Amino acid sequence: MNYTYEGWRGFEGGTWTSEINVRSFIRHNYTPYDGDESFLEGATQDTVDLWEQVLELTRLEREAGGVLDMDTKIISTITSHGPGYLDKNKEKIVGFQTDKPFKRALMPYGGIRMAEKACADNGYELDPEVKEFFTVHRKTHNAGVFDAYTPEMRACRSSHIITGLPDAYGRGRIIGDYRRVALYGVDRLIEDKKQQKETTRSAMYSHVIRDREELSEQIRALEDLKKMAASYGYDISLPARDSKEAIQWLYFGYLAAVKEQNGAAMSLGRTSTFLDIYAERDLAEGRYTERELQEMVDHFIMKLRLVKFARTPEYNALFSGDPQWVTESIGGVAIDGRHLVTKMSYRYLHTLENLGAAPEPNLTVLWSTRLPESFKRFCARISIETSSVQYENDDLMRFTHGDDYAIACCVSSMRVGKEMQFFGARANLAKCLLYAINGGVDEISGKQVGPEYRPITSEYLDYDEVMRKYDDMMRWLAGVYVNTLNIIHYMHDKYSYEKIQMALHDKHVTRWFATGIAGLSVVADSLSAIKYAKVKVIRNEAGIATDYEVEGDFPKYGNDDDRVDSIAYEIVHRFMEHVRKNHTYRDSIPTTSILTITSNVVYGKATGSTPDGRKRGEAFAPGANPMHKRDTHGAVASLASVAKLPFIDAQDGISNTFSIIPGALGKDDKIFVGDIAVDLECVDGACSTPTLFEGLDEENS
Amino acid sequence: MNYTYEGWRGFEGGTWTSEINVRSFIRHNYTPYDGDESFLEGATQDTVDLWEQVLELTRLEREAGGVLDMDTKIISTITSHGPGYLDKNKEKIVGFQTDKPFKRALMPYGGIRMAEKACADNGYELDPEVKEFFTVHRKTHNAGVFDAYTPEMRACRSSHIITGLPDAYGRGRIIGDYRRVALYGVDRLIEDKKQQKETTRSAMYSHVIRDREELSEQIRALEDLKKMAASYGYDISLPARDSKEAIQWLYFGYLAAVKEQNGAAMSLGRTSTFLDIYAERDLAEGRYTERELQEMVDHFIMKLRLVKFARTPEYNALFSGDPQWVTESIGGVAIDGRHLVTKMSYRYLHTLENLGAAPEPNLTVLWSTRLPESFKRFCARISIETSSVQYENDDLMRFTHGDDYAIACCVSSMRVGKEMQFFGARANLAKCLLYAINGGVDEISGKQVGPEYRPITSEYLDYDEVMRKYDDMMRWLAGVYVNTLNIIHYMHDKYSYEKIQMALHDKHVTRWFATGIAGLSVVADSLSAIKYAKVKVIRNEAGIATDYEVEGDFPKYGNDDDRVDSIAYEIVHRFMEHVRKNHTYRDSIPTTSILTITSNVVYGKATGSTPDGRKRGEAFAPGANPMHKRDTHGAVASLASVAKLPFIDAQDGISNTFSIIPGALGKDDKIFVGDIAVDLECVDGACSTPTLFEGLDEENS
Repeated sequence: MNYTYEGWRGFEGGTWTSEINVRSFIRHNYTPYDGDESFLEGATQDTVDLWEQVLELTRLEREAGGVLDMDTKIISTITSHGPGYLDKNKEKIVGFQTDKPFKRALMPYGGIRMAEKACADNGYELDPEVKEFFTVHRKTHNAGVFDAYTPEMRACRSSHIITGLPDAYGRGRIIGDYRRVALYGVDRLIEDKKQQKETTRSAMYSHVIRDREELSEQIRALEDLKKMAASYGYDISLPARDSKEAIQWLYFGYLAAVKEQNGAAMSLGRTSTFLDIYAERDLAEGRYTERELQEMVDHFIMKLRLVKFARTPEYNALFSGDPQWVTESIGGVAIDGRHLVTKMSYRYLHTLENLGAAPEPNLTVLWSTRLPESFKRFCARISIETSSVQYENDDLMRFTHGDDYAIACCVSSMRVGKEMQFFGARANLAKCLLYAINGGVDEISGKQVGPEYRPITSEYLDYDEVMRKYDDMMRWLAGVYVNTLNIIHYMHDKYSYEKIQMALHDKHVTRWFATGIAGLSVVADSLSAIKYAKVKVIRNEAGIATDYEVEGDFPKYGNDDDRVDSIAYEIVHRFMEHVRKNHTYRDSIPTTSILTITSNVVYGKATGSTPDGRKRGEAFAPGANPMHKRDTHGAVASLASVAKLPFIDAQDGISNTFSIIPGALGKDDKIFVGDIAVDLECVDGACSTPTLFEGLDEENS
Repeated sequence: MNYTYEGWRGFEGGTWTSEINVRSFIRHNYTPYDGDESFLEGATQDTVDLWEQVLELTRLEREAGGVLDMDTKIISTITSHGPGYLDKNKEKIVGFQTDKPFKRALMPYGGIRMAEKACADNGYELDPEVKEFFTVHRKTHNAGVFDAYTPEMRACRSSHIITGLPDAYGRGRIIGDYRRVALYGVDRLIEDKKQQKETTRSAMYSHVIRDREELSEQIRALEDLKKMAASYGYDISLPARDSKEAIQWLYFGYLAAVKEQNGAAMSLGRTSTFLDIYAERDLAEGRYTERELQEMVDHFIMKLRLVKFARTPEYNALFSGDPQWVTESIGGVAIDGRHLVTKMSYRYLHTLENLGAAPEPNLTVLWSTRLPESFKRFCARISIETSSVQYENDDLMRFTHGDDYAIACCVSSMRVGKEMQFFGARANLAKCLLYAINGGVDEISGKQVGPEYRPITSEYLDYDEVMRKYDDMMRWLAGVYVNTLNIIHYMHDKYSYEKIQMALHDKHVTRWFATGIAGLSVVADSLSAIKYAKVKVIRNEAGIATDYEVEGDFPKYGNDDDRVDSIAYEIVHRFMEHVRKNHTYRDSIPTTSILTITSNVVYGKATGSTPDGRKRGEAFAPGANPMHKRDTHGAVASLASVAKLPFIDAQDGISNTFSIIPGALGKDDKIFVGDIAVDLECVDGACSTPTLFEGLDEENS
């Protein structure tokens, strides 16, 4: 097919003109920028006025106890609300989730009790008819999941050997390719989806029927997207014709997603270099000035900062705040060797100056040694001044994900529009070790949670015996865990399917089945203590091992000591092998991650004393970190231990939270950077450049 | 487990005490009755009063245009309404679908437009919030089906080569074992379902998750059943303690089903001999008199006559009325050789005298040569006097289905609580023959509906060429047809699952995938004409064969002539073989039926002229009947032709509508029996006793 659109004037052709392929469009049309930030413009008066309005509303919201307004009857859909504005005359980019800013939408598909509680806890009352409908006639994801759970799954959930499962909140971690809306217009996308529907398999097996129904839902969602844009006065059926339209079309795509889904991470993708192509053309055509372009970007980012969901205090406690993870991935290097930094990369980061620092959107620089020097310096300055930039290792991820991936949430990389993730929270491997010792009895509740394997009855722990039993218990845990996630994602698809987000994906999507591990360093050190020191078991009157006495010293993870680092490596590898033994929903590819950042505290609270000397209730180290104060051989040795972990077994990410003060780096900068998380990822033990990011408090990353 | 209940006093034990097994209970406890009807009692004054009330309400309903009252906002569920009565003081058996008799419930799960139209066509307006909710947030079976249909399926549906699909109405044809409620009480049934849920497979493949969710839904439905009964003042958690409770418990089970589902056939099962066991005990205990027992039965049957659904005029036109198919199967013979006729069999049929003739419930005698003579005579008399009894061949069905099957709808036999059917309406094989000749082009619309196979272009039809092409076209048709049904039943399970009916089934249910054939005799005669006479094709200007001239005579189906009967046999066999080549939803076993009774007129209207000389629009013969007036060799020859059809390829039933006047049987009875349908079923061509039934107008049987 041959398409020509006004919006495509002057663009260089490529496969993107005959198929939906944003990467091809970017590759053929973007202009790498090697200059510095001197071209940037400050905030316009309209921007200042709007932002003051936002600050005032934020103040009022805080005074109101966290929520300013909330829907209790209108159920949020792409088209559920009329247009909403801060100040229609001043906003260059428009669109709110409801009919006014700061009014939180009602989203009960995930679970009606959660929606009801979110209302009640904020002083609102859910409409009783809505409650009745979603209790009796319209099942929710949460209700579906609990209908299918086994008693064993529920026990594992209660005992916290499996934690944070997305069975009572939206799984998130799906990034629609919102750029497609701008580049192709919605009509072309609908046409493409209709074609996909025509080309499903023809024997009507249940999964084929499901695919066909989903494609129909996607087509309807795209039609709704057009309607929603029309309510703001925009016809987005055809491609955007300039920067303003491109930003607006793209934002409408994203807005539709956050009107439809209250996912735990609603990330934006990788949009800046894409949009820069429009900006360059507009500058060349004299259509917009730099000042106008920056104003559009400021208003766009302002909108992203105002994405809000109705949530419960429990959710906010778990996630240490009220995060949306509107992650935008900036920069990186292309497969053809050119870096992907454009003026738009600068404009995005510059919003942190024009509007001030903010955790959302989660601006993430895809760091490479090959980024232009001036951009590196600019990033460093913005980081120091605002503590609001996240960095990730593009040199590493480009290897597995190419040059059009983006980060969902904080570290989950996926090719935009081509991959999605079934998010799976975490298995507590430290507790699993205690189950191995106690034959499946929970060391805190005394309940038989795991299988009734033979417990260890000796006074001193024997390494080989423990390892053998631990391996058995990990196999069991991996099985329950994967099957639990199978249920969750089956039900999420059934009752809370991400229509518009999946409409902005290809037909054949690669699905990652993302499991996660907690307590790795506790396990490594415990096994090291058993192997290299003597660990005496203290049992309570019921015979349950509840404490341990370590006699002698032992190598500790975090000191670049292969004796224990190899144990950590082995545990990750074995657990992942056990995960792989199980059927995973919808042909998804199992992965795991080692990246708790705050929830390690919660996991520790729920876990008894461990053979490494850690006492009951004490926090785990975050992610793949060595346990606090045990990495006594300096920063490099500590990082080297982490670097040995097998990335191929933990492709969803390995995190290492690393607190430093400038002096530790031999610098004497006056600005204190604060807690900085080092996100360290390695392939086959070969550690690549650590990337730095300011640690947003988080759970589900 | 060992259970003892007050309700079980005096019963002989058996496997039924330790597992859910009603058949075992019957076998161990029932009392065959060989006497005549002289024990029967007439209607009590309460019965007469209540029935007069019903007749008055019926008159008012007719005056109101067919519907007296209708819900437009309350959505029907098992517990949606408070109790409803005719006259609480007079009713021995209680319970209505809504809070008053003759008020039709709102059931939108199957399709919101159908529900809306049912309201509108009867002068009511569907509540706009309900409409919105079921359009936007709660998908229906109908919406799901159309989301998955292919353009080809829609074309086949429009051209009527596939007809009457249950995609806009409830599939029905599922019989809950309502006796279980009486025998075991609901608590024991819930316990059993919980056990079933505990013993599903443990690897969470999607179909295992589905099974677990369905079992949870079933358990909830049973809990709701208890609540519904409680609203009438009955605690049905334990087994019924006498006849009155047994009838009431059983009826509550059925009532829950018709509150939940508006299926095309909501059959009752095989309940009379079961209930007789309670009646015998009560008579022996002196608890109830015969007069009281008959009164209970009369009131029970009265309730079954008042089952009503909100339907559209189109539905009623298709089904020639407003049928519910509350089919009750009476009599038959047990595997152990004893007949299953009891006094209760008499009492059920006697309601036709006490209350007068009525099409519902569809009282069906499972006929055997070995039924007691007095019962045969009684049946004959009731038939002659009321024209309200259906007969089916038990000697035949017992062979494949044992002695605890029942009839769903009019002829579909299934083991009660152990088998269910995915109902599939019919494929038009006569039109398929025309598609073979015209290369997939519809002879009426001129559209390419089937595949673009090479059409026949010769002036005269060649048998071998036609057969080859017909076989190809049947293979195509079977494929589209089965895949269409796969979609329908996937979506019915997803959006309109029969919770309470399936709760009254075993865990492992045998599912029949019931396809159907229309136009068989037209096809047989057409092929015979092509083979034994000369058939000249008349084509229109577009080259489409639209008419045929037959030169010479040819053997016609219905004359016991193997030359054509073997063609009929071959067509049924081949089509069924093609059906079997396809995947069928949920491991269901494909079957077919040849049993249109009125819809043959509709099918004929939509089908062009055929090579047998039948002209465009002329009606087909019903079911497996020979074409009207072509069976010129007498009744026996006509029946013999039908008898040769392979029952093993058409296990869902073969029907032969056979009109006789008493004189034709050599009798001179003064009573004219009217149109009598002969239901004739055969195994391997060996025809068994034809059974007679008064033809209730029908479509979906």
